[in-house]
Amino acid sequence: MMAKHFVYHIPVCPFSQRLEILLALRGQQDAVEFRVVDITKPRDPQLLAKTRGSTALPVLETGDGSILKESLVILRYLDEILDGPMLRRSDPVEHAIESMLIAREGPFTMAGYLFVMNQDRARRSEHLDRLLAIYRDINDFLVDWNARGPYLFVDFGLAEAVFTPMFKRFWFLDYYEGFRLPAGRDYDRVRAWRHACMAHPSTGQVTEEEIVKLYYDYALGTGNGALPKGRSVSSFVFEPSWQSRPMPPKDKYAGSATDRELGLVT
Amino acid sequence: MMAKHFVYHIPVCPFSQRLEILLALRGQQDAVEFRVVDITKPRDPQLLAKTRGSTALPVLETGDGSILKESLVILRYLDEILDGPMLRRSDPVEHAIESMLIAREGPFTMAGYLFVMNQDRARRSEHLDRLLAIYRDINDFLVDWNARGPYLFVDFGLAEAVFTPMFKRFWFLDYYEGFRLPAGRDYDRVRAWRHACMAHPSTGQVTEEEIVKLYYDYALGTGNGALPKGRSVSSFVFEPSWQSRPMPPKDKYAGSATDRELGLVT
Repeated sequence: MMAKHFVYHIPVCPFSQRLEILLALRGQQDAVEFRVVDITKPRDPQLLAKTRGSTALPVLETGDGSILKESLVILRYLDEILDGPMLRRSDPVEHAIESMLIAREGPFTMAGYLFVMNQDRARRSEHLDRLLAIYRDINDFLVDWNARGPYLFVDFGLAEAVFTPMFKRFWFLDYYEGFRLPAGRDYDRVRAWRHACMAHPSTGQVTEEEIVKLYYDYALGTGNGALPKGRSVSSFVFEPSWQSRPMPPKDKYAGSATDRELGLVT
Repeated sequence: MMAKHFVYHIPVCPFSQRLEILLALRGQQDAVEFRVVDITKPRDPQLLAKTRGSTALPVLETGDGSILKESLVILRYLDEILDGPMLRRSDPVEHAIESMLIAREGPFTMAGYLFVMNQDRARRSEHLDRLLAIYRDINDFLVDWNARGPYLFVDFGLAEAVFTPMFKRFWFLDYYEGFRLPAGRDYDRVRAWRHACMAHPSTGQVTEEEIVKLYYDYALGTGNGALPKGRSVSSFVFEPSWQSRPMPPKDKYAGSATDRELGLVT
């Protein structure tokens, strides 16, 4: 029995959901205790001391008090130390293949976040094109290594654990940018992959409604708990709960709705 | 005895030197056959077919013909399949720590290359500041995990194999930008690390003279075998050899020397 590990996280954070997916797939949700950080409030000085001033989350605290950062590092670390077979492919070539796919996640995430945060309507198509180019590249990669699908290998694996939280965050693009993957063979393989990833029973930690409501401030160009102009409560605030709030307006280019319209004050 | 692997590479490429350092440290230089690619000539169609049109190097071809890309993926793959103890730390926490340091390599490399390629003298200090900020961050990381040094752990390891080729490429900053790490405690730990890395006997694949001469075109803002204005031969050309050429002019902001002055034509 290994020592208890702690993860400090923002519940809706995609980088933290990766760890939750891993624990669910490995059947070891109890191996890690999650401690919630409210990014709309000043950071706890004790936690800041542990992270040496960095506010990036999630961080993992090992049983002996070591602090590990970077969600991909933490993900691979947990995969290695948990009891039982690892999620990563055991065959070295197959592991290299999943790692090549994982290497595409950074640019993919960046493209999606820059797109949702873009405030210049004239630059919409430029952001869209950049994201679609990455989707085509992933489509090509999946066709190359496993044309039949739906996963990269026979089952949901490490690459799927890395990408699925991003696919779910990108619900904000469907809602605020009317994003749809175009029809056709350039996207069919990645479409099937994305669908299988999002439908997997170990990935249900967040819902579309939750993402759309919480990430409203991102759609206005502000992130990490900062406030859009004219607002006094962040869309990431814990109370009032997102369940109690109405859906935000879809037109992100029209400026922010008020705190009251968003159900952020009662 | 494993099947022969092939690496297609540019001899002076830092991403390829990582693999050479790994093989040297593991005493298995014969496990991989390196095949040289001349980036100043059109790419071999057979190689292009293997890489599905991508020109990024290095790529590794496994015994069964699988093509692996991304130098960090190839590095970890080779480390896993070579006979004998792996270079990566076997302890999972220590491996996570070296992986956190390795995660800093991308921004470090980007900052150094953008600095050497910058052509606007007015933006020099901005590039310098960005690179120094990353050095201070690495200094802080090394102090945190192993204040005594010189390496991250007791000996030259995976993180050192990743960074050393970049430290050596950044000779081009010393020469073309007069770069020196500032004196003082903010840099002393990373200075000691860099020195130990560069002095290690497994890292002698390139020399300062070679880097300064071959990367001259980068200092003029062009890379990957492209040609600066007014020139007809790339500084990366194999013949005439770099040994036979004079040192290029230090002032990168004055425009290119001629092919003849650079010893590129005879």
